[in-house]
Amino acid sequence: MVFNAYAAKQAGARLEPFRYEPRPLRSDEVEIAISHCGICHSDVHLVDGEWGDWFPVVPGHEIVGTVTAGRAFAPGERVGVGWQRDSCGECEYCRAGEEVLCPGHEATCQGNFGGFADRIRVNERFAFRIPDDLSSETVAPLLCGGITVYKPLRDFPAHGSRVGVIGIGGLGHLGLQFAKALGCEVTAFSRVADKEADARRFGADHFTTGEPEKESLDLILNTAHAAPDMDLYLGALRPKGVFCQLGAAPSPLSVAAMPLIGGSRTVTGSAIGSPALIREMLALAAERRITARTEVLPMRDADDALDRTRRNQARYRMVLAN
Amino acid sequence: MVFNAYAAKQAGARLEPFRYEPRPLRSDEVEIAISHCGICHSDVHLVDGEWGDWFPVVPGHEIVGTVTAGRAFAPGERVGVGWQRDSCGECEYCRAGEEVLCPGHEATCQGNFGGFADRIRVNERFAFRIPDDLSSETVAPLLCGGITVYKPLRDFPAHGSRVGVIGIGGLGHLGLQFAKALGCEVTAFSRVADKEADARRFGADHFTTGEPEKESLDLILNTAHAAPDMDLYLGALRPKGVFCQLGAAPSPLSVAAMPLIGGSRTVTGSAIGSPALIREMLALAAERRITARTEVLPMRDADDALDRTRRNQARYRMVLAN
Repeated sequence: MVFNAYAAKQAGARLEPFRYEPRPLRSDEVEIAISHCGICHSDVHLVDGEWGDWFPVVPGHEIVGTVTAGRAFAPGERVGVGWQRDSCGECEYCRAGEEVLCPGHEATCQGNFGGFADRIRVNERFAFRIPDDLSSETVAPLLCGGITVYKPLRDFPAHGSRVGVIGIGGLGHLGLQFAKALGCEVTAFSRVADKEADARRFGADHFTTGEPEKESLDLILNTAHAAPDMDLYLGALRPKGVFCQLGAAPSPLSVAAMPLIGGSRTVTGSAIGSPALIREMLALAAERRITARTEVLPMRDADDALDRTRRNQARYRMVLAN
Repeated sequence: MVFNAYAAKQAGARLEPFRYEPRPLRSDEVEIAISHCGICHSDVHLVDGEWGDWFPVVPGHEIVGTVTAGRAFAPGERVGVGWQRDSCGECEYCRAGEEVLCPGHEATCQGNFGGFADRIRVNERFAFRIPDDLSSETVAPLLCGGITVYKPLRDFPAHGSRVGVIGIGGLGHLGLQFAKALGCEVTAFSRVADKEADARRFGADHFTTGEPEKESLDLILNTAHAAPDMDLYLGALRPKGVFCQLGAAPSPLSVAAMPLIGGSRTVTGSAIGSPALIREMLALAAERRITARTEVLPMRDADDALDRTRRNQARYRMVLAN
């Protein structure tokens, strides 16, 4: 048995065909024939060596496909896999349904070969049935990008009424849709004016390329990879407001103490979500027709597609199809 | 009617005797003959002009005394007053019991004449009966310093089991006591080794002048006025851990994104607490004999006492007595 994948052999290298023999299928694993895989900025970080030496890297962790083996699903069932492929199942976090925080957390494509491939094997607890109403190419990005914006919207419900989303890209365009579906008043912050029409279609009530209004928001999701002007955005939070960093900003956030102290404001971060929350998100997506806006390329063009993501050119998420 | 107080006439000026005629007592106010007033670092910030031009400033917002007029209390009842002297009573925050966040919040000694005086008048909702078991000079600092450390310990109970307190001064020595009373395992972080014996008496299970252990704490209270090395202290938080800034640090905190994103860690701040929480804190303090360690000076030595606080020489809180 050989799986056909695309890998970067070293930091910044082009993706090339890469064949590997998978480990034997464990009884608690599922094997999936991949039909689609979305491309997330984390894939760029991994390929470019910014997150360490994991080479050869087979990126890809927004996977949709059909089951070919495994006890938990019927053959041919359509399932999805995100960033996490396994957890210990026994620690305090796993027992509490917070598998994301498990110290034994295993990533789909960091230390394992990911979804830029024809097949993959993962723990069955981290494969999720895809609702029939959602197409494979538009649901794939929900497995990582979708859950990453959905979790903070659900974690901070009391603060959820006036939500700002910084950066209208892969994560941001899903954040606008989920925030709207959850009944929030949504403001989109973009560097470029030409995203306004799209942002409003995704659910933005307000759109600006300028500065946020003072004390106008309860929750800000920063999907941009750069650290923003925190004085501006902390000033835009109402008392008890939450600023949640989602993009992997390389430089630290400069956080003044007084807005935190005076108004019980919070700066936090979030990544992906637990299996239970992913199922909840998929159900809501099916009900409210929340889908990623994608550009689909064949898997053999993985390197070109990755480069479009690297250059922030995707509108709004690249998806590879086998 | 004239009240006798001590005021700074301009930024950094010495405190001098200052007489003023109070506004007429409103029906919802209480008048208090002040017996004791603690000194908080906020008083230094105000007198030194670091928080704007509020001059003449009569500092003092850790007040204990006996009621001389007002419908809500019997004459002679012993009450305390903290940083907040009034709120609108009608906004969303007041209705939710979060009077601290009221936009109409009135401060006891910022824009009003505070507790370095023989009398004061405040809204009756912000005067609190002092339990008989607590002495006036050792309870006074609880009205601001105590509630400031108590609130985050109550706000983050799930994270409260392993608590670190940075800075063993006016706030810190109360933080150790309240954390211990709430059943936490408590670590004291101090710049100076000679506070170890005191810190352990206040409730510290561990004491260090060095670096924190990695992923060892659920909640960190930073009572120091300086911004600490955030990489160290965020690294010391377990997943879902909370770093809470209490001291008014003049320079911003430098917060790396990845510890927030990867482990759902949070940086927040807190100041004082609502009337309901102050009552709860006073009851716990009486039950568990939680008291400030104080140095008491007569009110006429207000300027010397303030200077000891300014120089971080108080062990552990200065209190003025009439």
